[in-house]
Amino acid sequence: MDQQFSYQELYQFTYNVFKAMGCSEADATTATTVLLSADLRGIDSHGVARLSGYVRLWEVNRINTKPDIKIVHETPSTAVVDGDAGLGLVVAPFAMKVAIEKAKLAGTGWVSVRNTNHFGIAGYHAMMALEHEMIGMAMTNASALVAPTFSIERMLGTNPIAVAIPAGTQPPFVADMATTTAANGKLEILQRKNAEAPLGWVQDKEGNPTTDANVLKQQGALLPLGSDREHGSHKGYALGAIVDIFSAVLSGGSYGPWAPPFPAYVPMPENMPGKGLGHFFGAMRIDAFRPAEEFKQHMDNWIDRFRQAKPAPGHEKVLIPGDPEREYEADRMEKGIPIVAPVVADLKAVGERFGIKLVN
Amino acid sequence: MDQQFSYQELYQFTYNVFKAMGCSEADATTATTVLLSADLRGIDSHGVARLSGYVRLWEVNRINTKPDIKIVHETPSTAVVDGDAGLGLVVAPFAMKVAIEKAKLAGTGWVSVRNTNHFGIAGYHAMMALEHEMIGMAMTNASALVAPTFSIERMLGTNPIAVAIPAGTQPPFVADMATTTAANGKLEILQRKNAEAPLGWVQDKEGNPTTDANVLKQQGALLPLGSDREHGSHKGYALGAIVDIFSAVLSGGSYGPWAPPFPAYVPMPENMPGKGLGHFFGAMRIDAFRPAEEFKQHMDNWIDRFRQAKPAPGHEKVLIPGDPEREYEADRMEKGIPIVAPVVADLKAVGERFGIKLVN
Repeated sequence: MDQQFSYQELYQFTYNVFKAMGCSEADATTATTVLLSADLRGIDSHGVARLSGYVRLWEVNRINTKPDIKIVHETPSTAVVDGDAGLGLVVAPFAMKVAIEKAKLAGTGWVSVRNTNHFGIAGYHAMMALEHEMIGMAMTNASALVAPTFSIERMLGTNPIAVAIPAGTQPPFVADMATTTAANGKLEILQRKNAEAPLGWVQDKEGNPTTDANVLKQQGALLPLGSDREHGSHKGYALGAIVDIFSAVLSGGSYGPWAPPFPAYVPMPENMPGKGLGHFFGAMRIDAFRPAEEFKQHMDNWIDRFRQAKPAPGHEKVLIPGDPEREYEADRMEKGIPIVAPVVADLKAVGERFGIKLVN
Repeated sequence: MDQQFSYQELYQFTYNVFKAMGCSEADATTATTVLLSADLRGIDSHGVARLSGYVRLWEVNRINTKPDIKIVHETPSTAVVDGDAGLGLVVAPFAMKVAIEKAKLAGTGWVSVRNTNHFGIAGYHAMMALEHEMIGMAMTNASALVAPTFSIERMLGTNPIAVAIPAGTQPPFVADMATTTAANGKLEILQRKNAEAPLGWVQDKEGNPTTDANVLKQQGALLPLGSDREHGSHKGYALGAIVDIFSAVLSGGSYGPWAPPFPAYVPMPENMPGKGLGHFFGAMRIDAFRPAEEFKQHMDNWIDRFRQAKPAPGHEKVLIPGDPEREYEADRMEKGIPIVAPVVADLKAVGERFGIKLVN
C-alpha cells in the first residue's frame, strides 16, 4: 500500500509547491529541507503529510509566503522575532540563527517568536546548533488538543520540546518530544488502521479513559505526559504550559486555547490575545561553560555508559535519544521514503492544483 | 502521631545545627531558609527530614561547611561555579544570584555548578528570580535511582526541573517536578505507612512492574515520567538525561550512575568522572523580551483562563502549577508544620549530638 519515493523526488516536488505558493528560492529551499527532515527521521506526521495543510492555510491568507521576518526587540543574549505570518518552516530557522549568533558573542542566545505558523519538527531547529559546537533547544505552541489535569477542556497543544547536545566520536544526543503521552501523529496512524489506542493516551469529552483513537473528533482530548494525576500528568501539563508561555506569552503570540488551529477549515479563535503561533529557541555555546573538547569527551563517556546500561529481559539495549531517528534517516536516504496511500493521493491533488507532477 | 512545630521553632533548631557544623551565620541562615522552604511548601521529604543526612555527610567529610564557592569560568551570559563541596543549600543560592546578575546585564544568565551537594527543593532557587521580574529555572542531578526505558540498571537521579514565572495580580506560576513518575519522597511516605505503590511508579530488579514500595531496597528502580515505553517513559528518561548533562557534564560534576549518593553510608562510586553533584540555573529578564507590565498582564490572563478551564466530573477546578504549595505555605506558616514521629526522633538525635534542644 505504501509507495516508495526517493528523497530527491519528494524534495523536488515539495520545493516546486513552495515556489508555486510564492516563496523565494531561498525560502522554498529552507522550507523543503525542514519539512522533509521529518520524513527522513521517521516522524511521518510532520513531513509531506502536512504539505496540503500548509497550502490550504496559504489559500485562506493565513500564511504569508513573502514575509518580512524581523527582530523587534533584543538584548545581548535575547531577541523577539516577528514572523510576519510566514511559514514556520522558514521563520524558525531564521530565529534559530539569531539565537546562534547571540550565543557566539554572549555565550547563549534565546529567541521568542510570534506571528508564525507550524514549524515542522522541533528537532531540526535544535540540531542547527550542533555544527557550531552549541547545545540547541526548540519548542513551539500549537492549537489546543490537550486537556490539563482535572479538566475536560482542550487548553494546550502537544507543545514539543527538542534539545540537541553535541558529542565527540558518538553521534549527538537529540531529544524531540511532544509534552503529551503520545504525539497526535501516533493517534492519526491508529485512526488510519482503525486500531485502538492504549489507555492513557486520550480521554473522551466527559473525561473518561478511552481507547477510541477517533475521540478527538468527538471533543475528546489528548492527555499530558503522565496520563493521569497518579502517574504525573500534572508534570506533563506543566511542561506543556511552560512551552506555551515561553513561546507565546514572552513573544506576544497567541497562547493556550487561543493558539491558531492548523486545519484551515477551523475558524480562528475569537479574542486572540496575540499574533499567530509562538516558538522559543535557545543556543548555548559549549565553551561558554568548559572547553568543547573536554565536554565532548565526557558526552562520549556519558553516551557510552548509558548504551551499556543493563537491558531489561526482552529488550536488546538501552537507546540514546536520537538513535531511532538517526537510523531512519540513514535508511530512508538510501532506500527511499515510504508514503502511505492517502498521503500520496493528497500530494497528487496538491500537484494538480499547481500543475506540478509527483514523479514516481 | 505527627507533632506540630512552629516555623520559628524548626528554624531556630536547624540554624543552630548548621552553626554547630561550622557554617558562618550567613550560610546557616541561607541553608535553614532553603531547607525549611520545603517543609513550608508541603514537600516534606526535602525539608528537616533530611537534616540528619546532611550531618552524616559532614561527619564523613563529604560536606565542607567553610567552602570557597567561586566562579571558575564565565562569559556575559554564562558561568561555571565550583561549590568546593559546600552544602547545596548554600551553593545553589550563590549560583542563582550569579545567574540573576548576568541576566541584569545580558538579558539572561545560565550557571552550571560542580562540586556541590543536595540543594533542597529546586523550586526555592527558581523562585529567587521572581522579585527581579525574571523567569527562574533550577535543576540538579542526584544519585542514581531511576532506570532508563528498557533497562534494569539505575542510571539517573530523580533529577528535578523547576521553572518560576512571574505574573501581575495573580500569584506566580511555579512548576517543581521530579522527572520521574513519582518523586522518591512519595515512595518513602508509602514505605512508612506500609502501603502499596500504584503500578507504574517502580519496577523490581528484573524490570517487572510491581506495587512494592520497598523495592528500591531490593535493587528495584524508580521509573521515568511516563512509566513505560507505551506511555512515554522515553520522554521522562530524556528529560532526566538533559538535567544530568546540563548540571554535571557542562560543569565538570559527576554524572549518571557516578553521581555521589546522599546517604553517607553508601560508598562513593568508583572512577568518578567529575567532582560532586551538579546543578544548573537560569534567569531570563522579562523585559529582555517584552515590557514586564505587558507580560504580566498576559500571564494574569493565561492563569485566569486556565483556572476557568472546564473541570472533569468529580474535580472542583484546574490547578495552576504552584497552587498547592502556596496553600501549604500559608497554612503552615500560620498553624505550624506537622512532623512525623520518626523524623522528630531523628531531629532529637541530631540535637543531642550537638547539645541543641528541639523545643516542643
